[in-house]
Amino acid sequence: MLELYGCKKELLNDIAFIKKTMLEAAKIAKATIVQQYFHQFSPYGVSGTVIIAESHINIHTWPEHDYAAIDIFTCSEDMDVDSACTFLKKALKAKQHDIKDYKRGNLEMIKKVRDLQTQHRHQ
Amino acid sequence: MLELYGCKKELLNDIAFIKKTMLEAAKIAKATIVQQYFHQFSPYGVSGTVIIAESHINIHTWPEHDYAAIDIFTCSEDMDVDSACTFLKKALKAKQHDIKDYKRGNLEMIKKVRDLQTQHRHQ
Repeated sequence: MLELYGCKKELLNDIAFIKKTMLEAAKIAKATIVQQYFHQFSPYGVSGTVIIAESHINIHTWPEHDYAAIDIFTCSEDMDVDSACTFLKKALKAKQHDIKDYKRGNLEMIKKVRDLQTQHRHQ
Repeated sequence: MLELYGCKKELLNDIAFIKKTMLEAAKIAKATIVQQYFHQFSPYGVSGTVIIAESHINIHTWPEHDYAAIDIFTCSEDMDVDSACTFLKKALKAKQHDIKDYKRGNLEMIKKVRDLQTQHRHQ
C-alpha cells in the first residue's frame, strides 16, 4: 500500500497520464498485464485498475488533496514492487510517501480450516 | 481487507458466480457501481474488480487453498461495508474469516506537505 502526498495536482487529474504511468509501473514491477480499466471522475479524480497475472495494481487519486492511494497486490515473489514504487513516486512528483506491506492469506489458517473439514468428513 | 478461509472450492472457480456475488456485495454495501471486470485464470482462480464511485471492491480467489482475498476500498462513510462482508462470507460458504481495517491517506500529512509547499512558494 503506497500513499503519495504532495503530488502534482494536474498529473493526478490526467487520466491518459495516469494510465500510461500505471502500465509503465506494472512493466517495471515485472508484472504480466492481463487487462486495465481507468475512470475519470467529475469534477476531478481518477481511479484505475491494472489486472495482472500476479493479482492487481490499483490507483485512486484526489487532486484536491495532491494525494494518491496505490495498491500493489501480488502473489508472486519475483515481482519488483520496490522499483515500481520508486517509479510511481517520481512520476507523480510526490513530496512525501508512505509504504506499508500487508501479508494476505494466512497459510496456517488455510491448513487448519482444511484439516477441520477433513476431520469432519471422516466422522 | 477481508480474508475468507475454507470457502467452497467450486464457487471460487466459477467466474459467473463470483461476478454476480461481487455485484450483489457492492449493492449491499450501498456502493455506486461504475464498471466491473472479471478474469478467469487457468487452471483455476478468478480475479475481479468492481470500480465504484466510492473507490473499488476487488477479489482474488485461490480455489486450491479454499481461500479468497477481498478488498473493499471506500472514501465514503455512508457505505455499509460490514453487511457486504457478512454477505460475502455466507455466499462463498467461508468457514473462517479475518477482517482488517486500514486507514488510507493521512490528512495531517496532506496538510503538512501542502503547508510546506505554500511556504516554499512564498520564500
